[in-house]
Amino acid sequence: MMETVLNVGLTEETVPGLIKNTNDERLVYDAYRRLITMYSDVVMEKAAGIEPVSDQKGIRKQLDKIMEKMKKEKGVKYDNELDAEDLKKLCKLYKMRVKELLGKPFPDDAMKQLWEGIGAVFASWNGKRAVSYRRIEGIPDDWGTAVNVQAMVFGNMGETSATGVGFTRNPATGENKFYGEYLTNAQGEDVVAGIRTPAPINEYGKTEHNKRLTSLEKGMPKIYKQLFNAQKRLEAHYNDMQDIEFTIENGKLFILQTRTGKRNGPAAVKMAADMVREKLISKEEAVMRVTPSQLDELLHPMLDPAKEKTTSPMAKGLPASPGGAFGMAVFTADDAEQWAKDGKQVILVREETSPEDVHGMHSAQAILTAKGGMTSHAALVARGWGKCCIVGCGGIHINVEKKQFTARDKTVKEGDWITLNGTKGYVYEGKMDLIKPDIEHNVTLMYFLDICNSVKRLGIRTNADTRKDATVARRFGAEGIGLCRTEHMFFNPHRIKSMRKMILAERLEAREKALSELLPYQKKDFLEILEAMEGLPCTIRLLDPPLHEFLPREKDKKQELAKELNISLEKLQKRIDQLHELNPMLGHRGCRLGITYPEITRMQATAILEAAAELTKAKKRIYPEIMVPLTGMRAEMKDQYEVIKSVADKVEKRYNVKIKYSIGTMIETPRAALTADKIAEVAEFFSFGTNDLSQLTFGFSRDDIAGFLPDYLNRGILPVDPFHIIDRDGVGELVSIGIKKGRLTKKDLKVGICGEHGGEPSSVEFCHSVGMNYVSCSPFRVPIARLAAAQAVVKEKRKD
Amino acid sequence: MMETVLNVGLTEETVPGLIKNTNDERLVYDAYRRLITMYSDVVMEKAAGIEPVSDQKGIRKQLDKIMEKMKKEKGVKYDNELDAEDLKKLCKLYKMRVKELLGKPFPDDAMKQLWEGIGAVFASWNGKRAVSYRRIEGIPDDWGTAVNVQAMVFGNMGETSATGVGFTRNPATGENKFYGEYLTNAQGEDVVAGIRTPAPINEYGKTEHNKRLTSLEKGMPKIYKQLFNAQKRLEAHYNDMQDIEFTIENGKLFILQTRTGKRNGPAAVKMAADMVREKLISKEEAVMRVTPSQLDELLHPMLDPAKEKTTSPMAKGLPASPGGAFGMAVFTADDAEQWAKDGKQVILVREETSPEDVHGMHSAQAILTAKGGMTSHAALVARGWGKCCIVGCGGIHINVEKKQFTARDKTVKEGDWITLNGTKGYVYEGKMDLIKPDIEHNVTLMYFLDICNSVKRLGIRTNADTRKDATVARRFGAEGIGLCRTEHMFFNPHRIKSMRKMILAERLEAREKALSELLPYQKKDFLEILEAMEGLPCTIRLLDPPLHEFLPREKDKKQELAKELNISLEKLQKRIDQLHELNPMLGHRGCRLGITYPEITRMQATAILEAAAELTKAKKRIYPEIMVPLTGMRAEMKDQYEVIKSVADKVEKRYNVKIKYSIGTMIETPRAALTADKIAEVAEFFSFGTNDLSQLTFGFSRDDIAGFLPDYLNRGILPVDPFHIIDRDGVGELVSIGIKKGRLTKKDLKVGICGEHGGEPSSVEFCHSVGMNYVSCSPFRVPIARLAAAQAVVKEKRKD
Repeated sequence: MMETVLNVGLTEETVPGLIKNTNDERLVYDAYRRLITMYSDVVMEKAAGIEPVSDQKGIRKQLDKIMEKMKKEKGVKYDNELDAEDLKKLCKLYKMRVKELLGKPFPDDAMKQLWEGIGAVFASWNGKRAVSYRRIEGIPDDWGTAVNVQAMVFGNMGETSATGVGFTRNPATGENKFYGEYLTNAQGEDVVAGIRTPAPINEYGKTEHNKRLTSLEKGMPKIYKQLFNAQKRLEAHYNDMQDIEFTIENGKLFILQTRTGKRNGPAAVKMAADMVREKLISKEEAVMRVTPSQLDELLHPMLDPAKEKTTSPMAKGLPASPGGAFGMAVFTADDAEQWAKDGKQVILVREETSPEDVHGMHSAQAILTAKGGMTSHAALVARGWGKCCIVGCGGIHINVEKKQFTARDKTVKEGDWITLNGTKGYVYEGKMDLIKPDIEHNVTLMYFLDICNSVKRLGIRTNADTRKDATVARRFGAEGIGLCRTEHMFFNPHRIKSMRKMILAERLEAREKALSELLPYQKKDFLEILEAMEGLPCTIRLLDPPLHEFLPREKDKKQELAKELNISLEKLQKRIDQLHELNPMLGHRGCRLGITYPEITRMQATAILEAAAELTKAKKRIYPEIMVPLTGMRAEMKDQYEVIKSVADKVEKRYNVKIKYSIGTMIETPRAALTADKIAEVAEFFSFGTNDLSQLTFGFSRDDIAGFLPDYLNRGILPVDPFHIIDRDGVGELVSIGIKKGRLTKKDLKVGICGEHGGEPSSVEFCHSVGMNYVSCSPFRVPIARLAAAQAVVKEKRKD
Repeated sequence: MMETVLNVGLTEETVPGLIKNTNDERLVYDAYRRLITMYSDVVMEKAAGIEPVSDQKGIRKQLDKIMEKMKKEKGVKYDNELDAEDLKKLCKLYKMRVKELLGKPFPDDAMKQLWEGIGAVFASWNGKRAVSYRRIEGIPDDWGTAVNVQAMVFGNMGETSATGVGFTRNPATGENKFYGEYLTNAQGEDVVAGIRTPAPINEYGKTEHNKRLTSLEKGMPKIYKQLFNAQKRLEAHYNDMQDIEFTIENGKLFILQTRTGKRNGPAAVKMAADMVREKLISKEEAVMRVTPSQLDELLHPMLDPAKEKTTSPMAKGLPASPGGAFGMAVFTADDAEQWAKDGKQVILVREETSPEDVHGMHSAQAILTAKGGMTSHAALVARGWGKCCIVGCGGIHINVEKKQFTARDKTVKEGDWITLNGTKGYVYEGKMDLIKPDIEHNVTLMYFLDICNSVKRLGIRTNADTRKDATVARRFGAEGIGLCRTEHMFFNPHRIKSMRKMILAERLEAREKALSELLPYQKKDFLEILEAMEGLPCTIRLLDPPLHEFLPREKDKKQELAKELNISLEKLQKRIDQLHELNPMLGHRGCRLGITYPEITRMQATAILEAAAELTKAKKRIYPEIMVPLTGMRAEMKDQYEVIKSVADKVEKRYNVKIKYSIGTMIETPRAALTADKIAEVAEFFSFGTNDLSQLTFGFSRDDIAGFLPDYLNRGILPVDPFHIIDRDGVGELVSIGIKKGRLTKKDLKVGICGEHGGEPSSVEFCHSVGMNYVSCSPFRVPIARLAAAQAVVKEKRKD
């Protein structure tokens, strides 16, 4: 959650008393100056909905300019070189400027400040920043916010004062070590803003960057001991990693706040796994501790280490959030958003970031800042999203006006490619190859995924068309293949020729001849895939796309083909024209092909079942599930069932073996879902094809939604892209009807989902809730689906 | 229903006894000869499933050849010129030939003939002919058939014997007059086969063709009196027009059979109307006496009388079934079927027709036979279907081998166009214009439709885009417009220019300028249509098709447009390419246009509401219903509702008038039906667009189903074309869900259907059964819909 810390209570009237109490005039006037700045920014400008007084930064920037001017006049570099008189004068100048620019005076009344401040915090809930943040994070608008009022303590009362932030475990790695940063003679916002590089609180936190700074452990060992004990108690109390803010005022420790700490994906997984091992939390609690997007971070791409070894970075910063990324450099959040909308990959490069930059950070592939530490705004936000991020990269010099930065002797202009290694903090010129993460050797991850398996009920299968994919998916924990598409197998240059011959044949005989050429290829494919999935079920879908997709489009390819087939180009063109469809998505495809050309179904069924027969004879446990696509009617299913069954009977007889196969169907037309009771009289399993089902239920072509989908999402007509997250009200209703009706006919009907929703967490939860047996997704989404399936179980229990 | 009359019981053994009883050797051997022919044909060949022994006609033809040969040898022309000895000899020759060709002897055993005959009749239920007939008529396979066994009477025992057929009312016109035909010295099959031209039973039945023959009324007045009284009693008993078969054996009348008589459309309507007036039947019974397809006959095209006056027919026959038709001449039933499958319009030309020809007759636009009377097979069947038919056209000479016929000095070859006037019996060379029937001046029809209105509950609206259509539909009884499409209005040459400017505009300003050019046109359209529908509701649908449909396709048109718009061809092409869609049916259309370009909705709403305001000010009762197309989500409806409402508020203020308008939506995506409860929170009415709803529910593109639909229908995978008759299980289920959910939110929600199902009787019945308020169909289907809606009420009552 976001928080705003607002200091109130200093006025012309209260300042003298405070000076008397603290005996530090400079401190008090500095606090007063800061209060005026923040109050006029947050309460008088932002919360009041006043347009910023300058294009760039509003009142805050204007007040900062007054101080910069004074520092220049006094010939000093740092704020703390200004004395009490300077600061007192600044307070006056600030107040004059506020009245001038915002049209009303800064209220020199403590209670008015308090009540207006409280009002401003509540109002901030509907501010643009907060709304945008909630959109990104998926937080409902009606939660609302809260206000705490507490007395101030000061971390900037000299060298025995300090302020800092601590995490009970390392939020970047998950290691069970107290980790944090602090600044002496400073206030909380100085740490978060990242203007001064903070010191580590203990030796554990030492890095290349801060190793020369004194840790709290060394500098104030007694206070450190208190702090260490406090964080231990807090974690034990809350049973989760805590993010603690503390201030030391004249040698006295105050814990300002504790909350569950944000963490990146690897840390979240490690903490959850560790805490189960440490018996701190249950397995069910553990699966709730990692969000699917955090888990996704572990599956993120990295820079190719071989390539990296031979390349020198142009700059080095703090590794704030791991993973690799490349993109074109942009220098404002608005540019980042706009370029991303235009389909470009960008990296947002900033001096430092602030909540105003959130929209641009979200749009960027990665974030690079020149200033700030591991707990700076950029670092916290990027880690929360699992987005690659490097902060405190002092070696780069940014010129926002010119939209460029320099590092050493190199200049990177807007639009130039750069690559970041967020795990190490390296910045490279140009675009560098990314490689997939080595998930299988990540022992902590594997342990965590085992926890997921022990909680989840849904089976997790994979979509795989090749032995390679099948093998990878098995390693990620796939429990079978939920969708093996056969059409891709025909695009190999040798095969496409036979395929085209088949399509262009005018008589059954010629078609069967061409199909007989394809048979050995298909059989080999299935031998490989079935063997790779030995012991697990393997759903193979019969040919789905319309035949014209296999024909050449370019003229020279057509000429070549005509020659090969020994027909005239005109004749070929005529046949291609015949096959042309106005709406191929709704055309002659799916089981409609198998019905008009049963010889295609026969060939494919033969290939699958002969492969299965051979493997079964070789004592392999093989479970092919033959899936008929795009069924809409019982009669279609019946027709194809009989074709396949008759092939199976012959193959079993020929090989003298019993094959453990079944024959089922995709449910991907609304009609199939609505008449599932009848289809289930024939089909032995269902697999919901929610891609096509969504297209048909909405009447949206995925290929053609670009014309209106962005508008729909922006204006909230669609809350989310229904091809990404399943539409529960419409498509989900059909899925639900389909399952209910199907199981009316066959009580134990096996039901799954294939298609892209199968790897999307909220859709997986939906699939669990409607009682599916399994989901199927791409190999690299299998771990996400395992987690989502486990979380679905826990959420369901917690709801009851 | 079909019937088979089979004579059995004559054998070598029984023949002598019968000769003794009848004292007529010739008669008995002729009966024996006929029995052998029919038995070997029906029982030994067809029912036994033996392939016909010749390609053409099977055993019957082979036996006929023997007789033809004998007649030639004896030098006689007619069958009845052969004497008893000849016939006796023929019986022997027939039996030898039967054994030779069918491989087993004709059974000379009365009981065996009886039992095998009974078996053959039962077996005929599954014969190809019967199955094909049931398919066409929609008769379930499980009804089965029955066998009656009765003693023979003979109408061929000389000139005091006769056989005939009578109708208690004229089956061609409905006139309340006893009508029929008979042949002396003949058997029943002679009348039906149409080989001899029969005489009229009374003076009423006299025509040009038979006026020289003696009527039964004149020839056997006493018998006629008996027959007349019998038919009166039979009609009074059954309360419907009877089709009676009778035989006179040596001056004694036998009624062989009575059944409800087939009639053509005009006759059915007249009888139903008359019987209500005569207080014989109730209004509810009357609406059940006319099938929608019979009513359709009255709405059938006719030849343009002006054109006909100036053209001489090439031949004249009996006007067996009314209406006009043109087509290419074909000479076999198989050809008729094949050509029709290839998309050609054909007229089947035959010597005479038999039940073997039914499939070809069904495929043809019309039927023309050289032989046969008004009760011949061709006439009966065509009338039953309301298909244009001319029989007994002696002036044409058919050569089936050469596939041509000649009339006078002209030759019509296979594939040549001919035109028939089935109402008058004229045959013309070439293709002649057809005109629509004059329904409004048909007083009987209007009375009958008033009966329908007094029974029906559903409202009947029309689909009309122009004042002309609206006016026509009102005359046919439309109770409002259910669908006024606005897109056609943009294709006028003046408007298309502004439309294209609007589409190609890059900025809102230019788009609004182009729209403002379209506004006055649209307003004029709506003024006309709303005025034509004064007093009735008028549903106007906002722009629906994707914008690229309005752009030119040919290069020269594009060049012209680029010049007009003062942009380069490349720029124009780029914009056209941008708008191209892979699946336009699922693309940027419907309310998606109005949402991304609200200025289009604003312009259309302004045009409708300003027109309505002006008419309302002029004291016209105007009820525009503004309909948003292709809604899938409540948010879409809400967005468009607000755009329209805000226009309405402004127009009402500007004109200072209250407009009686409402804002509703099409329900044509599955999602809209599934979430109808939410959409009804905003929408004020629903209209089911079952064309698109069927496309999306099945996943069928109407433009692309040609690749598989014929196969689906032939193989019974689809029982009917779902774009013709609503699919109750799938699409109907969604309609049902949509209505239920919609009315959960708005109890009295007005619900209708627009699209082609709205004029199809079984779909109208469905709409009634799910509680719709109205159906909407094309103007010329309005009478059919009125009848279907009335029948739906009666069927519902009878079911209860």
